[in-house]
Amino acid sequence: MSLTVVGSIAFDAVKTPFGERPKMLGGSAVHFALAASFFDTVRVVGPVGDDFGDPEIAVLEARGVQTADIERVAGGKTFFWSGVYGWDLNDRETLATDLNVFAEFEPKLSAQSRDCDVLFLANIQPDLQRQVRAQCADARFVALDSMNLWIDIAKESLLAAISEVDCVILNDAELRQLTEQPNLVRAAAKVLELGPKVVVAKQGEYGAALITQDGFFSLPAFPMADVHDPTGAGDTFAGGFVGYIAAHPDAPLSQELLRRAMAYGTALASYNVQEFGTERVARLTSAEIADRVAQLAEITRFTAEPLALRD
Amino acid sequence: MSLTVVGSIAFDAVKTPFGERPKMLGGSAVHFALAASFFDTVRVVGPVGDDFGDPEIAVLEARGVQTADIERVAGGKTFFWSGVYGWDLNDRETLATDLNVFAEFEPKLSAQSRDCDVLFLANIQPDLQRQVRAQCADARFVALDSMNLWIDIAKESLLAAISEVDCVILNDAELRQLTEQPNLVRAAAKVLELGPKVVVAKQGEYGAALITQDGFFSLPAFPMADVHDPTGAGDTFAGGFVGYIAAHPDAPLSQELLRRAMAYGTALASYNVQEFGTERVARLTSAEIADRVAQLAEITRFTAEPLALRD
Repeated sequence: MSLTVVGSIAFDAVKTPFGERPKMLGGSAVHFALAASFFDTVRVVGPVGDDFGDPEIAVLEARGVQTADIERVAGGKTFFWSGVYGWDLNDRETLATDLNVFAEFEPKLSAQSRDCDVLFLANIQPDLQRQVRAQCADARFVALDSMNLWIDIAKESLLAAISEVDCVILNDAELRQLTEQPNLVRAAAKVLELGPKVVVAKQGEYGAALITQDGFFSLPAFPMADVHDPTGAGDTFAGGFVGYIAAHPDAPLSQELLRRAMAYGTALASYNVQEFGTERVARLTSAEIADRVAQLAEITRFTAEPLALRD
Repeated sequence: MSLTVVGSIAFDAVKTPFGERPKMLGGSAVHFALAASFFDTVRVVGPVGDDFGDPEIAVLEARGVQTADIERVAGGKTFFWSGVYGWDLNDRETLATDLNVFAEFEPKLSAQSRDCDVLFLANIQPDLQRQVRAQCADARFVALDSMNLWIDIAKESLLAAISEVDCVILNDAELRQLTEQPNLVRAAAKVLELGPKVVVAKQGEYGAALITQDGFFSLPAFPMADVHDPTGAGDTFAGGFVGYIAAHPDAPLSQELLRRAMAYGTALASYNVQEFGTERVARLTSAEIADRVAQLAEITRFTAEPLALRD
């Protein structure tokens, strides 16, 4: 079994009230792959420039991530994103988005990447997502992320891409924008009508919700006293969530399975934000993940004992 | 046993994308009392004007709420609030806040109201909250709500009031503002240092979190396809939460008890927002509340099964 992810590989410059990094490894495919590497063999598809070197590859390979489909564009520069977070880490200002080699990206999947059991289409142009999806015809589970930009400028393509996948993972505001519905319940129902069997709404510091035809599930984010850099949290969550599903090739997509996948995604994301970029997840252990999943179960547990109320 | 609430009694004019009401019964004490009436005998303390009549009293008395301490100010007008909600119901614009009789409010508690077992100090000027709290010296559990206005103009009074109660129920943004901390975990820890044993962070559509020295608990809001008017949701939540504690006079304030109280508060609040003002809660039944508490348990349940991860 293997898991393929197609998305950005980047250098990020990030400043938060708790520190800054002028140039660190980032990108949706990188964050996803590191998280998913705890669950399955992960192949990364995406372009880099001449400035992407052995130290960056080493971070991925140390976690067993397969990097053969990372395309080196001669004479090109790696995708660069720069942003500043405010005291409220939900306030993020983008200072620069230099697409560089990502602007001309045409995904080229090796036979091994195409032969994946599970596929994650990170946030890239939706027509490219469709091309990749078509190349991985035998994948039993395909999930997709996107962003408000594609809803604004390529909505029809995005809707077509969504209709071809099993699972959509979006911010809750993006789900509402995409479907023009006033709340998550109605927005998720609209997305399920398009074809996907699973909708995951990312809610930032509030956690995430899971919606399928069988039910609704909500899980808070892990409560953190120290969040140093939220960059990559959503892709790390997706890596844990999709990775958990990849690790269970014979299990039906039940609420039971998907809820546990949510817990692993949430646990991974909570570690991601503790330090800058990939720093924390790169040295994470499976025992630490299991510990946080157990704590998530504890902080959400309650029993509904019957009580005689006054009518 | 009995529960006393001191707060506003109001007429609200509300417009949302789903309808409008030019003049409906509202106010923090009213929403709280209706919710808490399912759990205990509730006494309301607050002022009204000549325009407050038998129909409004009847809504409270139909739920068994004791109205003898509702002070009728001759020649005065009842507190009036007017607001418009946008398509995103988190966007609320206040059009008018006419304090009227509320401007000169000096809480006058009857012996019965002072003799309460549990006291809720709804959002009023913090020095008034302290006066009331001092009059109810024997109350075994006292909870307090407030708002950003008092943090801005009466912070020292509010901090003093907080130091004299058992439980603080605030929006999470207010908790961060009050304590000047970047996140809920740190903000709640600061409030616990002031004296209270229980901190509840209301998070609107995302639910609520509970923090005590013993632990952290997070509960999502009940997922709703139709929210028609969020006015009073926070006070209705508080009524269910504090009411549940009032209904258990001999139980220690354990996480177990408080978590169930959170579920009842959340269930009550979910009904409140389904229709305008007090309309839905006024005709609610205990079976409906129990049903939604059970559903809350279902939508938050997951089991953390061990999984062999790849280190």
